[in-house]
Amino acid sequence: MAGKEKLVSAITSREEDFAQWYTDIVKKAELINYSSIKGCMIIRPNGYAIWENIQRALDERFKATGVENVYMPMFIPESLLQKEKDHVEGFAPEVAWVTHGGGEKLQERMCVRPTSETLFCDLYANIVQSYRDLPKLYNQWCSVVRWEKTTRPFLRSMEFLWQEGHTAHATEEEAEERTIQMLNLYADFCEEVLAIPMIKGKKTDKEKFAGANSTYTIEALMHDGKALQSGTSHNFGDGFAKAYDIQYTDKENKLSYVHQTSWGMSTRIIGAVIMVHGDDSGLVLPPKIAPKQVMVIPIAQKKEGVLENAQALCDRLSKVARTGIDISDKSPGWKFSEYEMRGIPVRVEIGPKDIENGVCVLARRDTGEKLTVNIADVEKEVTALLDTIQKDMLERARAHRDAHTYTAQSLEEMGKIINETPGFIKAMWCGSQECENKIKEEYAITSRCMPFEQEKISDKCVCCGKEAKTMVYWGKAY
Amino acid sequence: MAGKEKLVSAITSREEDFAQWYTDIVKKAELINYSSIKGCMIIRPNGYAIWENIQRALDERFKATGVENVYMPMFIPESLLQKEKDHVEGFAPEVAWVTHGGGEKLQERMCVRPTSETLFCDLYANIVQSYRDLPKLYNQWCSVVRWEKTTRPFLRSMEFLWQEGHTAHATEEEAEERTIQMLNLYADFCEEVLAIPMIKGKKTDKEKFAGANSTYTIEALMHDGKALQSGTSHNFGDGFAKAYDIQYTDKENKLSYVHQTSWGMSTRIIGAVIMVHGDDSGLVLPPKIAPKQVMVIPIAQKKEGVLENAQALCDRLSKVARTGIDISDKSPGWKFSEYEMRGIPVRVEIGPKDIENGVCVLARRDTGEKLTVNIADVEKEVTALLDTIQKDMLERARAHRDAHTYTAQSLEEMGKIINETPGFIKAMWCGSQECENKIKEEYAITSRCMPFEQEKISDKCVCCGKEAKTMVYWGKAY
Repeated sequence: MAGKEKLVSAITSREEDFAQWYTDIVKKAELINYSSIKGCMIIRPNGYAIWENIQRALDERFKATGVENVYMPMFIPESLLQKEKDHVEGFAPEVAWVTHGGGEKLQERMCVRPTSETLFCDLYANIVQSYRDLPKLYNQWCSVVRWEKTTRPFLRSMEFLWQEGHTAHATEEEAEERTIQMLNLYADFCEEVLAIPMIKGKKTDKEKFAGANSTYTIEALMHDGKALQSGTSHNFGDGFAKAYDIQYTDKENKLSYVHQTSWGMSTRIIGAVIMVHGDDSGLVLPPKIAPKQVMVIPIAQKKEGVLENAQALCDRLSKVARTGIDISDKSPGWKFSEYEMRGIPVRVEIGPKDIENGVCVLARRDTGEKLTVNIADVEKEVTALLDTIQKDMLERARAHRDAHTYTAQSLEEMGKIINETPGFIKAMWCGSQECENKIKEEYAITSRCMPFEQEKISDKCVCCGKEAKTMVYWGKAY
Repeated sequence: MAGKEKLVSAITSREEDFAQWYTDIVKKAELINYSSIKGCMIIRPNGYAIWENIQRALDERFKATGVENVYMPMFIPESLLQKEKDHVEGFAPEVAWVTHGGGEKLQERMCVRPTSETLFCDLYANIVQSYRDLPKLYNQWCSVVRWEKTTRPFLRSMEFLWQEGHTAHATEEEAEERTIQMLNLYADFCEEVLAIPMIKGKKTDKEKFAGANSTYTIEALMHDGKALQSGTSHNFGDGFAKAYDIQYTDKENKLSYVHQTSWGMSTRIIGAVIMVHGDDSGLVLPPKIAPKQVMVIPIAQKKEGVLENAQALCDRLSKVARTGIDISDKSPGWKFSEYEMRGIPVRVEIGPKDIENGVCVLARRDTGEKLTVNIADVEKEVTALLDTIQKDMLERARAHRDAHTYTAQSLEEMGKIINETPGFIKAMWCGSQECENKIKEEYAITSRCMPFEQEKISDKCVCCGKEAKTMVYWGKAY
């Protein structure tokens, strides 16, 4: 892979094989490396820097709503995991067990956290006594482990990075409010920072989190017409509080159970960024999370004055954007392809002719468009262009999603859509799990969510023809 | 603990029982909570916010030297751990083993990383081919697990948070240079940000890292005269490269082994902050890492205008420092004690009389000193005071360390010092492990480091009386 003569080899096109295109990108843009542990990935600097930018932006938004960060142990004793029945049933089959430590067999085995509800409950039971101690709005950034048979970089791996927020409230209303608040926060973050529009809604009972009263979700549509669950927010009611005995004394000095929520977003969202924005030349990163937003490429750099001028441009642009420069002896063509593969939003080209004319060229990664601008105005021009790219990427993603959102009146219609022009399918549902199961069995289509914005497409369930209760977004999902 | 009438109960004094004083502080300042997993701690918001500030400052310094962040799997297959003989001997006894996952027994057990040299070696063997790929300057922020029988919050726990840097270089010289560069970076960080002066030096062979050619360390002196190893930087030479087959093609097209380093700092350093700066009223935080630097306390807050003026002060100060305000109905006396316990550097008091006179009172946490300043100048005054506190804390810590650094000419003298006036002991050493062992057996004193700044205290080894080679800092250690 290394050396002066390395060429940027082409990747599989999206049309030809979307799955292979995805794998090519994560490898060639050097986002990840496979590791010697099956199903675990190594996140390389190009990938991790994206995660750091996501973390920073999300964390700031969390803290603005009063959330505080903590760190909980990575191990959960088996007895603690087992206290909430639905929860343990949901997670026990996919955990990793530590059975030996310090050379000895453990008296009680511990799992590596697949999620930390049980640990937060244990903590809250200890530190919450009075209504004055509420709410508790804790979050942690960590890695979790879930044993998966089939894994794909970012989308599904045995270990992944995420944040998990866990809150405890005095009332049911307050817990519901926080659940929705965090869902909205996720959706706004995805639109404003990742340039990915989201459908917000509630999961059906079949699809909700193990132990939750209700699960809310944001769903995005990938370029290939498949859906990706991008973040979830759960309202637990007082179920966990009862299992873990988390009670507080209210203002009237009566004991009550707390009401809890949890909400999470993971490195999976990087998969969404790749599959929503990427193209056949590689990654396309929204400026707000791009580790480098601008790359300066000198043209004919051995000619007098080129390197100095390019470096001066880089220095100036570094004050307004995350800017890099490539002065290696590779050809400009190689460099163009390389930084296109890495998805850097703006390329700045500067050569002898440009210098003579007092201009440089800005090339947009998202459209390929080139603009010649005066060097004197370069900070202003680049800042404005990064803004435009960020907005345009969102609008293109929205247009693609809307163009691939369909309505269906019958099972047959659903099947035809999913096989011919895959996308979101809006269709009515009677509310029975039987119909949900049938749709899944026939077409591998799952209910993505019952959207907050309801429409009445028909009176009848798309599956059984009985009276419909809700409009559901359906789709094939990652 | 909760409720209006909660009193800030006194903590054990340092003189009475330093260990109990430490435990009292970590609990009462709400830095940690014990968890249901023996030896694992929960880092609560007050503690985690300190770690976030440490992380931010360190990470910035790392990146300024070209370091890039990555994330490696938390599991290490047994066969991978075993490739470097010294390394596995050092760590195997204290790891936790995962033997089951996804409901099945694993074909090969995996340990939870105690440190990640082996994983980084595996990665470098894959991605380093040519001299053009070097150096690799990777770092990760993560948690690691080491099975410990006796644990203490921050100082020694089964799981702890840290960063581990791992670099690969073309030459021996470059690796040595990076090892020393990172040691200096740690020492500067501790002095400039944590206000803790460090002794820099090299570990003896007995005390070096399992698998390293040489280990460098920074050592700090705690208030009780015991030493704390605060950060280490290791030069591996090409030992790991040979064990893991990490070769590159050099400019002459010959295959050579890379030279590697690793370096780490952990949540342990929070223990140093507590034990260097804390006093009998609680935590004392250096302004640069204090989650809140200033706390505004209204006096007689029910009197007209007090709350508004206090809030206005808080708003103005928020622009120059991390500022909070406590307008709860607890008494000012309670609030004073509470924020002293939490170590907040500056308290701002404002009451009806102050408002009349256009002044407010600034109280320093580190000295207890009070200053009356004009409200008009409050931003300037507080900024200057935070600076002064930061500097004074470093100077006081340095004076304490210097006053508790002794020289010894004989074993008996060492014993007398360590029992009567514990501190660092500078004494000559012949270089034999026999003498090192003897000193440890007799007085539980270990060699802390062979400092870069050598002095010639005598010609003879403090233990055997033979010719001395090096001056060593000795001490009792955490």
